[in-house]
Amino acid sequence: MMKVIYQGGRGCFSELAAHQYFGGGIRVYGVKSFEDIFETIRQNHGAIGVIPIENSLAGSIHRNYDLLLAYRYWIIGEIRLRISYNLFVNPGTRPGMIREVWSHPATIDQCRTFFNANRRFRPVAVYDSAGAAKLLKEKRKRNTAIIAGPQIENIYGLRAIEKKIEDSSENYTRFLLISRKKNIFAGDAARTTVVFGVQNEPGVLFRCLGIFALRNIDLTKLESRPNIGRPWEYLFYVDLKGSVRDERINRALNDLKENTAFFRFLGSYETREAG
Amino acid sequence: MMKVIYQGGRGCFSELAAHQYFGGGIRVYGVKSFEDIFETIRQNHGAIGVIPIENSLAGSIHRNYDLLLAYRYWIIGEIRLRISYNLFVNPGTRPGMIREVWSHPATIDQCRTFFNANRRFRPVAVYDSAGAAKLLKEKRKRNTAIIAGPQIENIYGLRAIEKKIEDSSENYTRFLLISRKKNIFAGDAARTTVVFGVQNEPGVLFRCLGIFALRNIDLTKLESRPNIGRPWEYLFYVDLKGSVRDERINRALNDLKENTAFFRFLGSYETREAG
Repeated sequence: MMKVIYQGGRGCFSELAAHQYFGGGIRVYGVKSFEDIFETIRQNHGAIGVIPIENSLAGSIHRNYDLLLAYRYWIIGEIRLRISYNLFVNPGTRPGMIREVWSHPATIDQCRTFFNANRRFRPVAVYDSAGAAKLLKEKRKRNTAIIAGPQIENIYGLRAIEKKIEDSSENYTRFLLISRKKNIFAGDAARTTVVFGVQNEPGVLFRCLGIFALRNIDLTKLESRPNIGRPWEYLFYVDLKGSVRDERINRALNDLKENTAFFRFLGSYETREAG
Repeated sequence: MMKVIYQGGRGCFSELAAHQYFGGGIRVYGVKSFEDIFETIRQNHGAIGVIPIENSLAGSIHRNYDLLLAYRYWIIGEIRLRISYNLFVNPGTRPGMIREVWSHPATIDQCRTFFNANRRFRPVAVYDSAGAAKLLKEKRKRNTAIIAGPQIENIYGLRAIEKKIEDSSENYTRFLLISRKKNIFAGDAARTTVVFGVQNEPGVLFRCLGIFALRNIDLTKLESRPNIGRPWEYLFYVDLKGSVRDERINRALNDLKENTAFFRFLGSYETREAG
């Protein structure tokens, strides 16, 4: 069985992303931090990691790009999930009994309308949502609820008493599957990711994009990020349609490498839609 | 006195940004939401708003770009602040007495290392940090602390017992000053922001950037954002050095407008460094 490492507890969206991507035939392991994912893979050569990389509301998760660069791992897959939250309680708890709502701080932040409408619910931040769900269950707490994705329903025996409590329905997260082993995918659903750095001078990005435009290569993401602590240096994250196995793309990337101060190919991989 | 509207309570970073930008001669008003800033300005023609637009760790605050577009306001200034957090208590509270720590969920999320190292501190999320600070003071609570920027020290008479508890020292936020009244700035510190939308096809961005590159115009930010709900459409946020008063930049923007499906000039404004 393939080992897949994610950050979070049972029932979190990263774990769901792993299951949705692979369908079956995997064994999943939750760890505490994004760093732990990378460290676990370092010690288990065949293990795969799953990391959130971009949220439609909050933007890119730069920390994970940094870790990808530092550990020199490869992207081997991608999946996009719709993020939605329910309010879960122990069976028997009625809304009027709830005093505290436990959840991850980022989740609390995305359910502001819900908390404004329910002023007697005290939002308590927990970093380990799965641990919180377990504690809620074991202590049979009646005055406490937790916020989590709908997928936790069957794991902890909790009951959803309010659904879709997130502020925005346009909340999506892109997850990447990462590995120490290079695994180049070629096919219609192929995407390629590169990161490159340039000294900031007028026209430099224009020249870099020309390399793709000349070959009719379709960019699906482009984001610049100032290299903090190094004024006037910028990193660009680029996703494009197609695989490096395609000679056209291979040549474009070689040209780009030749013309940039920093260049890293992160992988050609399959993008899958959540079922 | 100029009225400046910000989101948050007294002592928050948005308020600090307003004071640092203007130096003096302003009267500040805190409101509950970003929407409230825009609504207040609608009703007070001369009022200025201050909004966070980008954080070095969390990325762009897309919601505020959306509001800028919807309300058709102008950017009239920019300032960048270093974000740092202290742990505040009532005088007399020793660390061992603390049971609860109140703070905004986004702040709690940025102080994870601190909470992992202090497991007996229960992080409680509050949306109104100023209200929480006031309550802490009035009730003379000894078992509760709050997390806030160093600037709150002199406002509520609380004492910082731990400093710089944020996970990352590379935490900066860019704030924009916004107004209903157009106010074009020209000078060495001028920046210009535009948003444009294109149908996604290979090379389209290359052609758009060519408009700037041909004229040697320096882009300081470029970010693409998929237009969610409208597959294959992308919005690009571009910041560039200089003012639309400069004929070279004015022509570039006219060219860009002619060549894009959607175009909006958001302002030419002065960028200031925090003192």
